[in-house]
Amino acid sequence: MPDTSCMGVKERYSFLDDYSEGAHPQLLEALIASNHTQETGYGNDRYSAEAKRNIRAHLGREDVGVFFVPSGTSANAISIAACLRPHEAVIAASSGHIVTRETGAVEASGHKIINVPPMNGKLTPATITKALDDNWHFPHMAKPRLVYISNATEVGTVYSREELAAIKRLCEVKDLLLFMDGARIGAALTSTRNDMTLADVLELTDIFWIGGTKNGALLGEAVVVEHAGLAQDFEFYVKQHGSLLAKSRIMGVEFAELFRGNLYFDLARRGNIAAEKMSRTIVGAGFALRAETETNQVFAILPIDLVQELQRDFTFYVWEKCDEDRAVVRLLTTWATDVAQLEKFNQTVLSWTR
Amino acid sequence: MPDTSCMGVKERYSFLDDYSEGAHPQLLEALIASNHTQETGYGNDRYSAEAKRNIRAHLGREDVGVFFVPSGTSANAISIAACLRPHEAVIAASSGHIVTRETGAVEASGHKIINVPPMNGKLTPATITKALDDNWHFPHMAKPRLVYISNATEVGTVYSREELAAIKRLCEVKDLLLFMDGARIGAALTSTRNDMTLADVLELTDIFWIGGTKNGALLGEAVVVEHAGLAQDFEFYVKQHGSLLAKSRIMGVEFAELFRGNLYFDLARRGNIAAEKMSRTIVGAGFALRAETETNQVFAILPIDLVQELQRDFTFYVWEKCDEDRAVVRLLTTWATDVAQLEKFNQTVLSWTR
Amino acid sequence: MPDTSCMGVKERYSFLDDYSEGAHPQLLEALIASNHTQETGYGNDRYSAEAKRNIRAHLGREDVGVFFVPSGTSANAISIAACLRPHEAVIAASSGHIVTRETGAVEASGHKIINVPPMNGKLTPATITKALDDNWHFPHMAKPRLVYISNATEVGTVYSREELAAIKRLCEVKDLLLFMDGARIGAALTSTRNDMTLADVLELTDIFWIGGTKNGALLGEAVVVEHAGLAQDFEFYVKQHGSLLAKSRIMGVEFAELFRGNLYFDLARRGNIAAEKMSRTIVGAGFALRAETETNQVFAILPIDLVQELQRDFTFYVWEKCDEDRAVVRLLTTWATDVAQLEKFNQTVLSWTR
Amino acid sequence: MPDTSCMGVKERYSFLDDYSEGAHPQLLEALIASNHTQETGYGNDRYSAEAKRNIRAHLGREDVGVFFVPSGTSANAISIAACLRPHEAVIAASSGHIVTRETGAVEASGHKIINVPPMNGKLTPATITKALDDNWHFPHMAKPRLVYISNATEVGTVYSREELAAIKRLCEVKDLLLFMDGARIGAALTSTRNDMTLADVLELTDIFWIGGTKNGALLGEAVVVEHAGLAQDFEFYVKQHGSLLAKSRIMGVEFAELFRGNLYFDLARRGNIAAEKMSRTIVGAGFALRAETETNQVFAILPIDLVQELQRDFTFYVWEKCDEDRAVVRLLTTWATDVAQLEKFNQTVLSWTR
Repeated sequence: MPDTSCMGVKERYSFLDDYSEGAHPQLLEALIASNHTQETGYGNDRYSAEAKRNIRAHLGREDVGVFFVPSGTSANAISIAACLRPHEAVIAASSGHIVTRETGAVEASGHKIINVPPMNGKLTPATITKALDDNWHFPHMAKPRLVYISNATEVGTVYSREELAAIKRLCEVKDLLLFMDGARIGAALTSTRNDMTLADVLELTDIFWIGGTKNGALLGEAVVVEHAGLAQDFEFYVKQHGSLLAKSRIMGVEFAELFRGNLYFDLARRGNIAAEKMSRTIVGAGFALRAETETNQVFAILPIDLVQELQRDFTFYVWEKCDEDRAVVRLLTTWATDVAQLEKFNQTVLSWTR
Repeated sequence: MPDTSCMGVKERYSFLDDYSEGAHPQLLEALIASNHTQETGYGNDRYSAEAKRNIRAHLGREDVGVFFVPSGTSANAISIAACLRPHEAVIAASSGHIVTRETGAVEASGHKIINVPPMNGKLTPATITKALDDNWHFPHMAKPRLVYISNATEVGTVYSREELAAIKRLCEVKDLLLFMDGARIGAALTSTRNDMTLADVLELTDIFWIGGTKNGALLGEAVVVEHAGLAQDFEFYVKQHGSLLAKSRIMGVEFAELFRGNLYFDLARRGNIAAEKMSRTIVGAGFALRAETETNQVFAILPIDLVQELQRDFTFYVWEKCDEDRAVVRLLTTWATDVAQLEKFNQTVLSWTR
Repeated sequence: MPDTSCMGVKERYSFLDDYSEGAHPQLLEALIASNHTQETGYGNDRYSAEAKRNIRAHLGREDVGVFFVPSGTSANAISIAACLRPHEAVIAASSGHIVTRETGAVEASGHKIINVPPMNGKLTPATITKALDDNWHFPHMAKPRLVYISNATEVGTVYSREELAAIKRLCEVKDLLLFMDGARIGAALTSTRNDMTLADVLELTDIFWIGGTKNGALLGEAVVVEHAGLAQDFEFYVKQHGSLLAKSRIMGVEFAELFRGNLYFDLARRGNIAAEKMSRTIVGAGFALRAETETNQVFAILPIDLVQELQRDFTFYVWEKCDEDRAVVRLLTTWATDVAQLEKFNQTVLSWTR
Repeated sequence: MPDTSCMGVKERYSFLDDYSEGAHPQLLEALIASNHTQETGYGNDRYSAEAKRNIRAHLGREDVGVFFVPSGTSANAISIAACLRPHEAVIAASSGHIVTRETGAVEASGHKIINVPPMNGKLTPATITKALDDNWHFPHMAKPRLVYISNATEVGTVYSREELAAIKRLCEVKDLLLFMDGARIGAALTSTRNDMTLADVLELTDIFWIGGTKNGALLGEAVVVEHAGLAQDFEFYVKQHGSLLAKSRIMGVEFAELFRGNLYFDLARRGNIAAEKMSRTIVGAGFALRAETETNQVFAILPIDLVQELQRDFTFYVWEKCDEDRAVVRLLTTWATDVAQLEKFNQTVLSWTR
């Protein structure tokens, strides 16, 4: 039995991130049900095969590569290493996860990141073009070859179909590959602002990934490789980066479950709805948002006193101070967000309404 | 419900490897029990903390670094990257896992492997000294700085305390670090040939790891870093290699369970006992072994006809042909090996006895 | 005899860069004089030994490492690789040579560059501190460990002793190494703005290099390593990067000559004086400078028509347009700048004075 | 004036290597003649252009890439980095220069070297095939993609046209690239055993290089890239590795001279002839060779007493002891080998004849 002595202290409910809980119960049950079978390892188990079939069915394409890796950092580092030659660079927003939160993993595999300022968390044809214009002096400068975007972005915003298509068109003209980090692609594609399907994403990128960790799985992200040349040797990169699990069945079971029907999207939508509820309450109570709530991240500007009162029962990031009296806080919701806790949070906010 | 249609075909029982099954039931139950709690991520969950305490208790040392990573390849690549400067090399047996089965992951992080011929799967002071003698022409040659060994080795043999101590003494004299790949350290330390404890291994190496994947866990290996300088920044390497899981609790829960008592060693011993039973049956039936069975790997020389008969009900590696009539086969057993299937295998072998 | 047919066309005189000519005649003569002796290779020749003695005499220290490499990019890439562990990053101005003109060589050896905005081409304690404040979230962010500065900077400005000392003090407090790119250190230390000696630079950095290529040598830069731990294995890095020349005598001969007396500084001063003359003429003629001329680079704002007239006889960079009528041009002078050509240039400028 | 005080001691004549002297006088004169012209840098000077034309004329092909780099290690590391994706490996003889004398430069750019035992210093279709057979377990093993050979080899032997053609045929069948290290390609192609031209080498490889350092140049090797895809971005690699010299004219001038006529081959032949003379003397005096003398390296088995007598006047490598009385010595000759010294050496040997 686990040592839970340290868990006896009063715990505050967490809105810190979207990976605080374990797996969605349906995934856990599938894991239990599969536990006794013997499977061949390293990606050749029957559950991974089913997971690939299920994902391909959602994509409407039988011929795309699907590869499971254990973490978002491995998904990004492997995908970028597979796309680039040693002298080629990737263009990313300076707020991008590969720039700010991956311990230089992209550089560790030898590649320069060309930073551009984010526009509402996003890249645009104009900012990409500016990066190309600034990186022209060959062979003295690394050659831009790949564009990295996140959807949802690090600030919770989503790309519209037209925005993504415009980037894709530019990439085709400029001979650039396009890569989407989909750690929160579920939240993006179930946003009320979204007008894309998973199949659209496939069509409008060369390679992207579907985040499991932040949407119901214990671990695992599914990298989808549309580009046949990239897909061919992709598993070598997965293995070389230490990301090909012997018991690949774990990720197989989870993704088979998430994509057999619409569970993946149902879970993501739940997180978005919780965020919207929280967001509306905050606005209704007369407080401002730092950014509009498009997915499962709420950035709210609250009085310091309210922040402190909320901190008695809840944990969340205090992003930055605005002035003497107010601070921006970041609140994350997920499929696992407790309805009663959310209600309690909202009531506390409302109790401050004048 | 999983699509099990493809599982309808008659399945053969597998002695192919030691990662065919899921988790040991006790680990799975702990995972279920822990699933609903909220934990901070990236190694800061309470289960990982308990797992570290439990492992340290087995080691008898409070001050060693313990880090969880998802795979053996990541454990090796990260540990070696942490030990070496760019111009430093690692000495390994040419049969070593890092040489033959990791897609050049060590080289991918920039380091040369100096190969030496294995002696019964092992390195010796003599073979290491030879490698040093051959790599002297500085700065034209990479500088040997690390020795990599596996226990149990890739052919199932184990190091005695004296063998390991002799290597350690040489390393100290020659200013070399010593690293042990413990993918099968459980099997090694519960071998009837073994005379070491886990604490001995700590004392006689600078860094080693405890394999979970091949001994009851769904995934995960625990890297133990005795060397304080190495331990200090080790987590950066874990993160940079994409091996720091957001839901680090999964590995925490499993290792907490494996090392609360002696479960880890009990499971490993079970695999060894099954291998010994199989091995004795084979010898008793008049067939030879290619190598003595010291852990959970059996290398047997069997008539081709017997091999074919066994293949009707079982899967295993046919390692190489000896001559027209005989082949070497490799058979692996584990904590999960089915007693009835083992008995059936043994009966088939015995039925061939003249 | 060289094919000079293509050289028959009227050639314009170049103020494009500071590496258009061959070697200073004194170096060439030394090269000729040394040509027939037999020398041991790979850094062990007698000329390299003398060059090191001569440089150390200028530094007033016998115990520092001195290493010759063929190019500025190799000097930077090797020095940075020697300073950093895989998870450590270097802080540099976004205008730094390693950021903008080395094809991602720093990233190719695995390291992240943290960009900060330049202040008059320079880093300051404030901008470095900001970079540290932004890169705190360990182990998710690469660890800042090294500060890269250029003196003279990419825009021709120089550090005062106090400016450098302030950066050094911050580095010591924050456990950062300090590295100076000295491609144009000669120009910097002979600037009328300079108040440092080469020995001061040694004292106030951990590692720096003395550029030969841009100050009279055919090729070669001398990396000076004050930090004993860094110096110990430095030659391995030089060799691994392909920068340890078999006939190391070439660089040895040149640097022995440059630092036997004050030739190195005399040559650099000549370039600065030519720039100052040009700069004063431009200002005297009523035109503005984009930046004050501190070393051998002149950034002038000239009427487009004048630019075009000058381009009939001279080549130089048109840096950027200011408006419809004016552009910024960059003009470089050196020890080899032809007095008559400079005079002709200046006369053309003066002829435009109203 | 150089400090030659340390040169006052009696110097022994060196047969240690083929880079003890400076440049061939004709190259030095060309360097002097070119010194005053202004040239654009980084490979765009007129001398490099002429050098490329001259080399292409020897090759009989206008459309191949030619790139100058300062050292053999840079030529190898850059070429191999340009040929391989991160998961791809290079096959080389275990005696190959990249294996034994380049401080792990190939591994430092991320690639595994698959070692095969040399046959008289060479690779053969059989040994390459064995390497392919041993490296099949994808994606767990790095993928063989490139074959590295040296001509002349590290032990002075040369490939016949048929030997090279057989390797090339195998490479084509197996989708492998073929790369020849030509540090001593001059000696190889002027060997009495040789039946190939430089154009043959171009036809039978994908990429190779022509060594200048060991055949009359101060520094520099010319990499010839037949494969159009490789050639396209090759200069990026040169720059990223710190090997694109600002004053590229130095290598341009030298190679323009070496390949305007047949100087390159004339110089190499001189070294071979000297070696043959020495070799015949040794055999004529009744001593054995360790290997037949095919190029400019002599491996002789001499009595220890004779070795010691020779060491009074000459330096050379004592390769290894044969028994109590005899040792293998390595003697290198070049275009610069002094006829009188060679004669003196030979006389000493002959004086031992019984």
